[in-house]
Order: sequence, then C-alpha cells, then structure tokens
Amino acid sequence: MKNSYTNEKVVLSKYPSGIAKKENFSVIKENINNISENDLLIKTKFLGLDAALRLLIRDSDEFLFRVKENDILHGNIVGEVIESNNSDFQIGDYVVGSLGIQTYAISDGVGIEKVDTNFAPPEYWLGGMGIPGLTAYYALLDVCKPTVDKNVLITGAAGAVGSIAGQIAKICGSKVFGTTGSQEKCDWLVNELGYDYAFNYNDKDWFSKLKDASEGKLDIIFDNSGGEVMNQSLKIIGLNGIVLLCGSTSQYYEDEMKGPSNYIWLGTMRARLQGFVIFDYENRYNEARVNLGKWLKEDKIKMPNYIIESSIDAFPNAFEDLFSGKNFGKMILKLND
Amino acid sequence: MKNSYTNEKVVLSKYPSGIAKKENFSVIKENINNISENDLLIKTKFLGLDAALRLLIRDSDEFLFRVKENDILHGNIVGEVIESNNSDFQIGDYVVGSLGIQTYAISDGVGIEKVDTNFAPPEYWLGGMGIPGLTAYYALLDVCKPTVDKNVLITGAAGAVGSIAGQIAKICGSKVFGTTGSQEKCDWLVNELGYDYAFNYNDKDWFSKLKDASEGKLDIIFDNSGGEVMNQSLKIIGLNGIVLLCGSTSQYYEDEMKGPSNYIWLGTMRARLQGFVIFDYENRYNEARVNLGKWLKEDKIKMPNYIIESSIDAFPNAFEDLFSGKNFGKMILKLND
Repeated sequence: MKNSYTNEKVVLSKYPSGIAKKENFSVIKENINNISENDLLIKTKFLGLDAALRLLIRDSDEFLFRVKENDILHGNIVGEVIESNNSDFQIGDYVVGSLGIQTYAISDGVGIEKVDTNFAPPEYWLGGMGIPGLTAYYALLDVCKPTVDKNVLITGAAGAVGSIAGQIAKICGSKVFGTTGSQEKCDWLVNELGYDYAFNYNDKDWFSKLKDASEGKLDIIFDNSGGEVMNQSLKIIGLNGIVLLCGSTSQYYEDEMKGPSNYIWLGTMRARLQGFVIFDYENRYNEARVNLGKWLKEDKIKMPNYIIESSIDAFPNAFEDLFSGKNFGKMILKLND
Repeated sequence: MKNSYTNEKVVLSKYPSGIAKKENFSVIKENINNISENDLLIKTKFLGLDAALRLLIRDSDEFLFRVKENDILHGNIVGEVIESNNSDFQIGDYVVGSLGIQTYAISDGVGIEKVDTNFAPPEYWLGGMGIPGLTAYYALLDVCKPTVDKNVLITGAAGAVGSIAGQIAKICGSKVFGTTGSQEKCDWLVNELGYDYAFNYNDKDWFSKLKDASEGKLDIIFDNSGGEVMNQSLKIIGLNGIVLLCGSTSQYYEDEMKGPSNYIWLGTMRARLQGFVIFDYENRYNEARVNLGKWLKEDKIKMPNYIIESSIDAFPNAFEDLFSGKNFGKMILKLND
C-alpha cells in the first residue's frame, strides 16, 4: 500500500438512556498503514442511519449483534475501493456493506456487494436499492401479498422502509394508509409518494380518522413503529390479517419496551403478527433489484433519501434527529471530502 | 307442554373490577310455561366454566358478544331434552351448546349438538370432547403441527384446553413443557398427563429451568395464559416458531391488559403470533371427535374434569376459583337435582 490513511470511527462511549445523544458517542482516530492479502480498503462516501442500531447499544446481553462500550457502531456504508489486494474488486469500484460507522473500512470482500450504478446512484444502495428497499419488497410481496381488494397500513410511513413499502403496495393496487409524525410528512406521503391517506399520530383524532377511511378493516399492517400507533391499529385488523413486524422505532430507545396490549384482537380475527428478517432473502436480492430498478426508471417508484452533507462528527446529531423524525425517506450522511 | 318449570339463571348484576366475585352476579328466577313450535326445553345437567367469559363482562363495546348488566352469562351447558316440539330431538336426548348459565334452556335446535355417549360420558362434551378438546386438537394439528423434533410449551397447561393440548403434542412425539401455578399441578401434569416437564410460574426460577430443559428453544408456544409467563417464553422462541394465541387467562380480569413487551423477539426469529378461533372448524368437529374418542378408548389420552356438584348458586364462587387455578382440567358445575 502506497499511502497511509487516518480512519475516523464512531464508537459507543456510554450506554444511552432514552434517545441517544452526542455524549453517548465518541469519534476515534486510527492510522491505516497496511492491508492484508485479499483485503481491500474502502473510503466511505455515504453512511446509512438506521434506528435499529439503538436496540443494539443497550447494556444487555439479550440482543444479538450488540455493541458494547468502546465498540464501533454497526452501520451500512457505501464507499469507493481505493486499494485492493482482492482480484474481485478494482480500485474505483463502489461497494455497499455493513462495515461500521467509519471513514475508511477494510474488508476481505465477504458480505459486501458491488454497487451497480446502472440501476441507481450509489447512495440509493443504502435506501431503496439497499436493505430498506429489499425489506419492503420481500416483506410485502412474499409475506403480506397485497392485492387490489386489500387495505394496507404502513406505520412509520415516511421512514426508509415505509416510504418504499407504501409505493409497492400501491403498485399492487391496494388502498394504502400511512402514519407519520407531522402534517408536512402526511402531505408528502400523499402528494409525492401516492399514499391514499396519511395520518399524523400527534393529532388526537388520528385513529378515528384511520378507522373511518379504512372502514374499520386493515388487511395488512406493515409495522415499522410499534408502540401506541401499532397497538391502536390492532383494533381494526381484518379477518386473517397480517401484522408484519418490520421494526419498532418507537420502542428502541425505551428502557422498558411496551408490548401491544391489543394483541388479543389477533385471536378473534385469526390474524397473525409475523416476524421478518431480510437476510433470509440474500440469494434473491438481485431479482428484487431488477424490479425496483425498472420501477425507478419507469417513474413508478421514488426512492427518497434525506441527505445530510457533513463530516463523520455529524453522525450523533443525525442519529438523534432520526428519532425526532426529521427524515423524509432514508437518512444518509454524505461525507464531504 | 304439560308441566311448568322454574328456571334459575345467573345474570351480571354489576361489572367487576379485577377478578369477578359473588357480588357481581345474581341468580334470577323465571317461570317457563310454554315453548314454541319447533322448540325444545332442556334441563341443564352440567355447566361449563370458561375464563374467557371474564372478557365479555366488561363495560366496553370493544368486545364482541359482550354481556351487559342484567344479561344472562354466556356459557356452554350439557343438558337433557325434557320437552320437544322439534322432530330432530327426542325427550331423553342429551345435548350440548352455548345456551347460557341457567337451569333450563329453550332452543330451536340451531347451533346445538346431540351428545353421543358412545364416545364419552355427557360431561366430557364440555371438556375433552367439547370446545376445549376441539380447540386443542385443531390449533395444534392444523396450525402448530408438532412433530418429534419439536419442543412444545403449553402455558396454562392444567386448564381445560392445555390439559388436552399437551397430551396431543405427546401423541405427536414432541417434547412437551407446561407451565402452571402450583407444584401439585406440576406433578399432576408429569405423572398423570405425561408432560415431559412442568414448571410452577410462582417459583422465581421457573424461566431459567424452562430455558435449561428446552435448551433455549421452543418451536411452539401454545399460549393459554398470556401475561408474564408468555412474555418471558418469547425470549426462547425458536426459528420460524409459532406462538398460538389460544387464550390470555392472566389478562382477562385486568382493567388494563398488558401486551408482551418481548414481541420483538418474534422479529429476529421469523416467528409468528397466530390467532385462532375454533368455530372456523365447525364442519370438521366430527373428524376430531372420532380420533379423540379413539384415543380415549385406547387410554392414550385423559380428559380431566374438575367437577363441583352443587346448585347453580355455586356458579359465582366456582368462577372465582377458576381464576385462582383450583381446577385440574375442565371446571364443570354439575347441578344436583
């Protein structure tokens, strides 16, 4: 390796209580002077912000993939290969993978993918063409199976997964409802993303409005938020309905998570609350991307990214903003040079 | 009709808070002098006690089939036809149906069934040959599909449904675990019903014992109890596991029900919480009864009934006892003449 590099990585300095703040994280510098045989060195261009990270930075052994104090934060990045001892990757290639929140990453190529910019620009590989888009695609099409006669509620509708999921449900001809945290985002969901209805959960009448608009029947609840929004919605789950458990952003930062007390409605309605993990579909990512890329080209789908352009020092504040719902679509930190 | 009869029925006199007590109910008398064309008059012999009734006697429109103040309590009975204007039923026939908690019932024959004592004695039609047994049968065999390589947990294992469900899972060759509220009942589950392991949830180590015995993997949780027992168990749900939502006896009497905060484990494990209602299987009851009756004859299954012999005035106390878990198997009030 000709050059040496200074990597900056974000580590957990202190377990948070409630929403994680700047003081829970530190940025640490380290030098990279060498990479091993078969390794490649990646310069991070885009960092993805993912609410589920909050679940991993708990002082508890109960969660898999936990991040302990002084560990680097898990996270997906898109970056450019700048050094390569691996014949599968060339300098100049763009790659995406779970390589952690840092400005440079070393990888042996296992578990990372090349970004194909024929489909979409590199940063889309953190959103619509990446794990959030793939999750929306397979969780809906393979598990929920929305059709023209179905009412579909997306909670966390303006988030990374929700913003794509609602559009795919529309492509399937379903009537699509969304919940989100502001009127501005409701307007965006309806006017920009084609949702039929969107409800601001801070509006005290949101549930009765949802109930009226859906005629009291939700065949599919694609749940990204958990908490009271999901809990209320269970009261109008349809016969043989599906509640797809995709995420629980409202609960990740709670010291004591709350379960849905209305789960007994699932009993009466022969409905189910179904877990889902996208990694089960790893060998089918390309199939989804062909369709997602086609829909994108044909303007049938939008892949909204909420991009903050800054240095890696901006990560903690951006992560906090994610929980106050600042983002419209996937929140991405673009590292300026 | 030659004779007249004095019916005594139990009505809800006051919505309960917490576990329902004697003062929440009244026994009311009324004369029956006549039945219409096509009707039959049934003298109640056995009254079934069902914890789910507690869910219906709330001051809330949210539940279907609710019982309001001054309404008769819903309940299944087994009785003898003593007058008949209906050619499908003869005097002396034994019938079972949801005819309410009363000493005499009038029916037009719709929704009630004749009891076939070739299979089992009349009172069994409230337990193992009735709704509880049918529920255990179809919820397990049609939805959960226990096999020899599976670990099955039955919560509320000594109850009407649980006591049958565990035995069916054993017939299928699964390893069967049960939770219940006393050491005496644990011993009964293992020694009498053939459970592999039973745990007393009042023992503070119950969960770690369950975890050890099951090697931290429950493929099927057949949940009759809800509450903390079910919530803890979710932490060891297996990959693609099923939590069959059959009942929530621990929650029925709570003014504010609690949801399972560990539901997010379903996500990681691609598991599901599945609602179930036995009435969907109405046209297949006989198929189940042929097998249940055969197992009973071959001594492969026991159908435990916990019979209290008394007058209908004993119903409120018996219902209270149901929630303190006095019963081993189906609690039945046998009316003495």
